[in-house]
Amino acid sequence: MNIQLDRTSTTPIYLQISNNIRDMILAGTLAAGTRLPPERKLAEQLQVNRSTVLNAYRELKANNLADSHIGQGTSVIEGKLDGAFKQEGMADENTPIPSMPWEQIFSESSLRSQDTTVRDLLRLSGNSGMILFAAGVTVPGIDSLDALQRIQTEVLRQYGHTAVQHIPSEGFYPLRESICTLMHERGICANAEDTVVLSGSQQGLDLAARIFLDPGDVVLVEEPSFFSAFHIFRAAGARVIGVPTDRDGMRTDILAGLLERYKPKLIYTIPDFQNPAGFVMSLERRKNLLSLAYKHQTVILEDDPYGRLRYEGNSLPPLKALDKFGHVVYLSTFSKLLFPGFRVGWLTAPQAVIHRFVLLKQMADLHTSSLPQLIFDRFIREGLLEKHLVIANGENCRRRDTMLEALHSAEIEGLNWNTPEGGLYLWCRIPGNILQARLLTRSVENGVSFVPGNTFFPGTPSGNYIRLNFTYPAPEQIVEGVKRLSGAWEDVLKEQKRYTAVSKSELGPIV
Amino acid sequence: MNIQLDRTSTTPIYLQISNNIRDMILAGTLAAGTRLPPERKLAEQLQVNRSTVLNAYRELKANNLADSHIGQGTSVIEGKLDGAFKQEGMADENTPIPSMPWEQIFSESSLRSQDTTVRDLLRLSGNSGMILFAAGVTVPGIDSLDALQRIQTEVLRQYGHTAVQHIPSEGFYPLRESICTLMHERGICANAEDTVVLSGSQQGLDLAARIFLDPGDVVLVEEPSFFSAFHIFRAAGARVIGVPTDRDGMRTDILAGLLERYKPKLIYTIPDFQNPAGFVMSLERRKNLLSLAYKHQTVILEDDPYGRLRYEGNSLPPLKALDKFGHVVYLSTFSKLLFPGFRVGWLTAPQAVIHRFVLLKQMADLHTSSLPQLIFDRFIREGLLEKHLVIANGENCRRRDTMLEALHSAEIEGLNWNTPEGGLYLWCRIPGNILQARLLTRSVENGVSFVPGNTFFPGTPSGNYIRLNFTYPAPEQIVEGVKRLSGAWEDVLKEQKRYTAVSKSELGPIV
Repeated sequence: MNIQLDRTSTTPIYLQISNNIRDMILAGTLAAGTRLPPERKLAEQLQVNRSTVLNAYRELKANNLADSHIGQGTSVIEGKLDGAFKQEGMADENTPIPSMPWEQIFSESSLRSQDTTVRDLLRLSGNSGMILFAAGVTVPGIDSLDALQRIQTEVLRQYGHTAVQHIPSEGFYPLRESICTLMHERGICANAEDTVVLSGSQQGLDLAARIFLDPGDVVLVEEPSFFSAFHIFRAAGARVIGVPTDRDGMRTDILAGLLERYKPKLIYTIPDFQNPAGFVMSLERRKNLLSLAYKHQTVILEDDPYGRLRYEGNSLPPLKALDKFGHVVYLSTFSKLLFPGFRVGWLTAPQAVIHRFVLLKQMADLHTSSLPQLIFDRFIREGLLEKHLVIANGENCRRRDTMLEALHSAEIEGLNWNTPEGGLYLWCRIPGNILQARLLTRSVENGVSFVPGNTFFPGTPSGNYIRLNFTYPAPEQIVEGVKRLSGAWEDVLKEQKRYTAVSKSELGPIV
Repeated sequence: MNIQLDRTSTTPIYLQISNNIRDMILAGTLAAGTRLPPERKLAEQLQVNRSTVLNAYRELKANNLADSHIGQGTSVIEGKLDGAFKQEGMADENTPIPSMPWEQIFSESSLRSQDTTVRDLLRLSGNSGMILFAAGVTVPGIDSLDALQRIQTEVLRQYGHTAVQHIPSEGFYPLRESICTLMHERGICANAEDTVVLSGSQQGLDLAARIFLDPGDVVLVEEPSFFSAFHIFRAAGARVIGVPTDRDGMRTDILAGLLERYKPKLIYTIPDFQNPAGFVMSLERRKNLLSLAYKHQTVILEDDPYGRLRYEGNSLPPLKALDKFGHVVYLSTFSKLLFPGFRVGWLTAPQAVIHRFVLLKQMADLHTSSLPQLIFDRFIREGLLEKHLVIANGENCRRRDTMLEALHSAEIEGLNWNTPEGGLYLWCRIPGNILQARLLTRSVENGVSFVPGNTFFPGTPSGNYIRLNFTYPAPEQIVEGVKRLSGAWEDVLKEQKRYTAVSKSELGPIV
């Protein structure tokens, strides 16, 4: 039997043997029924251990290519294979073809990611006339397009053809440096080598899930938290468990017990102007969280998209700035600051972790688009991002105040809200008897949208909430939007009362 | 010692043991100084090999939780650890924290994607002076930067702030329409609704793997084929099996048998100017492939990055153009045509499949960067992409001819190559006794790089090859590069002869 072995190859010898034999079988050189050489004999011929041949034959059997019977050795399996295919091989042009059973063909994990919340929100935003309290972006239309025009022209002139060629998967090096100066201002000492540019922080969540999570792993998230994060963790097969929060952020007293019980791989947290609840984690809790993560050797995934959107009060250091032992994987993005459509975010972590992110990112999209990276770099170096933030935060704050005032004046019965010092959202508690879905439907009919609070709970919601964004709509839209919401609210309350009356009289328990 | 083992878990037993002990130490159940059971004894108790316990103890030592001394066995390390942790629940500021065992924390699938080939190639390309026959891009530096300057200015003026805002996950609608006109020219009838914009075709491969593949699924690929594709399939846990090829592409006669035996989920193919082998699949084989896919209800993933890079001869219709029953998922990209750094590709498939891609893409990066999409749309609509292709293909062809001529003149002993009618690569067979790794090392020392052929084989290579790109280097670099390659070749041949002489006389069989 003519078998070629390449002893310098990384392919195990037993596989080389079984592949060689497989090819002979499939090519018809070894007919069905042919007896393969006894293991000992082939081992001698090839100068390999007998167990190697044994493994090769096992492989062939596992692949249904050979079979063995005591006293008869191993032989090529009898099958329709050669006969049937050699002659007809192909479906006739006129043979009816059954349609593809796609649902059977999709993977488990792809069927796990059924959520369409973000998608529907993005679609909704297309309707003209709709006032969007459902958005998740900062004040639009004030980014300096003149500066962008000038800078995109300049970077193309400066970098020429290299501006349109491939760059390393880690990102454009000067941008990685610029990002580090941004992080220094937040108190984080990171260098360009520990920093990787991502296609938005959304990609950071996705890659983190793939890098850290195996099916069955546990992730702890604040309750409530950013829904997209826990959908991603679940798509990776993880179990997502909520940690209760209050106005000082994650309840680290409860966290201790959860760490003990569930031994999670990851703790996902948004310490500043949390989405959706708007809280800022207190300094004491930040220290407790780190301390617990050290003790339990747990990774903290710190998501910091909103840290720079502070309108009053004093900043607290991000977890990453307090992290002495490299347990924090820090994620941030330009998307809440400037040009969300450009999709540029970044991540900073210990070298061992960065290495994994870069390998996986290369597999996921090779690298983030070059031109937007060059543009952001220039915006930072010229101090234009900082200038923009002063203007944007002034406007964001004004819109927050406009919404607070409009809600106050509207006197919506039973509606309560927080007063966040920054970020994008009001988190509003609504009475227990108002159905979120009904309120949303009625509101959209009225020309205003929001995000139902249940979306943000990984498990049973601990209260009835809605999330209102105050930065995307213009001030006059905010005033009009609150009126529309108030109108929808009245309608739903009336319906609700009718329904309660009916259901009490006519319906028995639902079993 | 009470240790729970789960023999069905994917966590190695030794890690389960060390984790159990670690937890006892951290929980204070095993006090500092406690002697751990002798390895042999614990091995007996747990019914595992002694080496498993040995590994578990090694792990504990690596994590600074235990230490061993000759004659005294292994014991829990004396340290402030438990004291500090136990009483307060938090780590003391001064408590020594064991460093993170990152390798234990990374996921199975992330450890499966260890390949760094592309990454190393991208890095290599940074070295100035190096002549890159290892590249995978078309002729650089001829893309019209003037047109790009004008168009980026115009799109910003036309679309204003919406140019920098979010767009739907499916992509910028006008670009999806423009892409359809490109596909029509290839004979593919697709509409914008069936087409999704991707962050390069690399993302298409990654999403396809996640959408279709569960661990244990089988993917058939041409042998040889694009390495990144099968690394992605493997990272998804799939088994990748090669289908032999010849100058007419995939051997559909052998494919029939493989389909019967392995029931693959996917067949991955590059029918036009295949990477690396340069072949064009014959029309008959295309029909056979489709026919077999219909018969076996298998998905065909058609990767068509090079179809428009034809320098002579007549085009054949892509599989997608011949596909009557919607089994083909068609993937293409701008990256081999224009502005590879922009990372824009696309995918066309039946609605049920597109729906899945959009959901997953939204999870992966929300959407592809906006500005590059607007720019490509304008390039297509103004006919500039077509104009560019005429010029680029002229130059690509000239460079191919330059390399063919240089190789011919160099008279490199034992080197053979194909003459592809398009694409980017020559696929060169080298004598069996030349080690690719050695030739590459010597070549890089000489200032020229290429890709070793073994990289392109999912299993045992069926021959000794190297891949040379002829489009990226300028014609004079091609001539110089072939000289450098020839020099390296001579050196390696000499070494090889010396080595063979030594090995024949001194080494017995390797067992």
